[in-house]
Amino acid sequence: MPYVNIKVTDEGVTSAQKRKLIQGVTDLLVNVLDKDPKTTHIVIDEVHIDNWGVSGEQYGKLKKQQ
Amino acid sequence: MPYVNIKVTDEGVTSAQKRKLIQGVTDLLVNVLDKDPKTTHIVIDEVHIDNWGVSGEQYGKLKKQQ
Amino acid sequence: MPYVNIKVTDEGVTSAQKRKLIQGVTDLLVNVLDKDPKTTHIVIDEVHIDNWGVSGEQYGKLKKQQ
Amino acid sequence: MPYVNIKVTDEGVTSAQKRKLIQGVTDLLVNVLDKDPKTTHIVIDEVHIDNWGVSGEQYGKLKKQQ
Amino acid sequence: MPYVNIKVTDEGVTSAQKRKLIQGVTDLLVNVLDKDPKTTHIVIDEVHIDNWGVSGEQYGKLKKQQ
Amino acid sequence: MPYVNIKVTDEGVTSAQKRKLIQGVTDLLVNVLDKDPKTTHIVIDEVHIDNWGVSGEQYGKLKKQQ
Repeated sequence: MPYVNIKVTDEGVTSAQKRKLIQGVTDLLVNVLDKDPKTTHIVIDEVHIDNWGVSGEQYGKLKKQQ
Repeated sequence: MPYVNIKVTDEGVTSAQKRKLIQGVTDLLVNVLDKDPKTTHIVIDEVHIDNWGVSGEQYGKLKKQQ
Repeated sequence: MPYVNIKVTDEGVTSAQKRKLIQGVTDLLVNVLDKDPKTTHIVIDEVHIDNWGVSGEQYGKLKKQQ
Repeated sequence: MPYVNIKVTDEGVTSAQKRKLIQGVTDLLVNVLDKDPKTTHIVIDEVHIDNWGVSGEQYGKLKKQQ
Repeated sequence: MPYVNIKVTDEGVTSAQKRKLIQGVTDLLVNVLDKDPKTTHIVIDEVHIDNWGVSGEQYGKLKKQQ
Repeated sequence: MPYVNIKVTDEGVTSAQKRKLIQGVTDLLVNVLDKDPKTTHIVIDEVHIDNWGVSGEQYGKLKKQQ
């Protein structure tokens, strides 16, 4: 019965990487909590780098400064 | 004072269907919990089928296999 | 594949009322979007009235003033 | 360690406005709760006006009627 | 029409501090985006320190090591 | 910059199991997306079994029937 929401910045995550995240999180919930994969739902949200803030600044701006 | 977030896969949900969901959920909260429709907010998120996982697999891939 | 999160203030919602919300939202998603009830998950969060704000004030305080 | 999610209707929020929201919320968490800006994450979601419902109606429709 | 969800670790946030967060976030949305306070909802979630992870460790454990 | 929210039913998840989930999800984000563990936040929500619905029924009721 788990529901997992993964939020990452939108920086070109490939479909293959999304698949690895989905498989990995599902395996983890099966192994650690004995959950049924059929009822384990995972949603990945890709967030624009100007819409994610940390240290009081937009990540898009922090990235340019690096 | 309710806030409801509906997440569905992005498979061509029409504006009319969204309206029915919003009306239906609002009516339910009014009828069951006597909530005020004016303070009942509903947000629908449409999730790309490659970003939704179940059974350890992307829904986009499961859909093709059906 | 829908996931629905309902947030309401914690003011004595009964288990029977929660059941009606779960049944009602599931029926709505089946009827409007032809979703499978087996993959329709609903999570109800009950929020303390001091942790919910509207009009710039805690709902707990607004409620006392009514 | 705070995580803040701001959901607003998608009505042309500028990058400068997003920056003000991120700076303002971060300052607030630093001043009120003595949080570290480095671990304060803020995510802004812009929601299509047809996907936001209030008073049992899509905001997109309510806006036209105003 | 904004909805804001603030997640902080559960470390004795007072009701007065919650009020300041609610007032501050509401003012910010009014000032930056010209939102109506009556439709601005804020929900504060207090998360147990063993349920929040960062740097691959429970915050409860990190806190003890400080 | 990832933020991960794990929702599971509240059925006696131990602190050791939470730690394994936090470590596992962090490792996954490091390995798959090359994320920095220091900015990878994970929040686990434990949901009462009467507040989680699937198949149009409260999980608490489904569990008794098994």
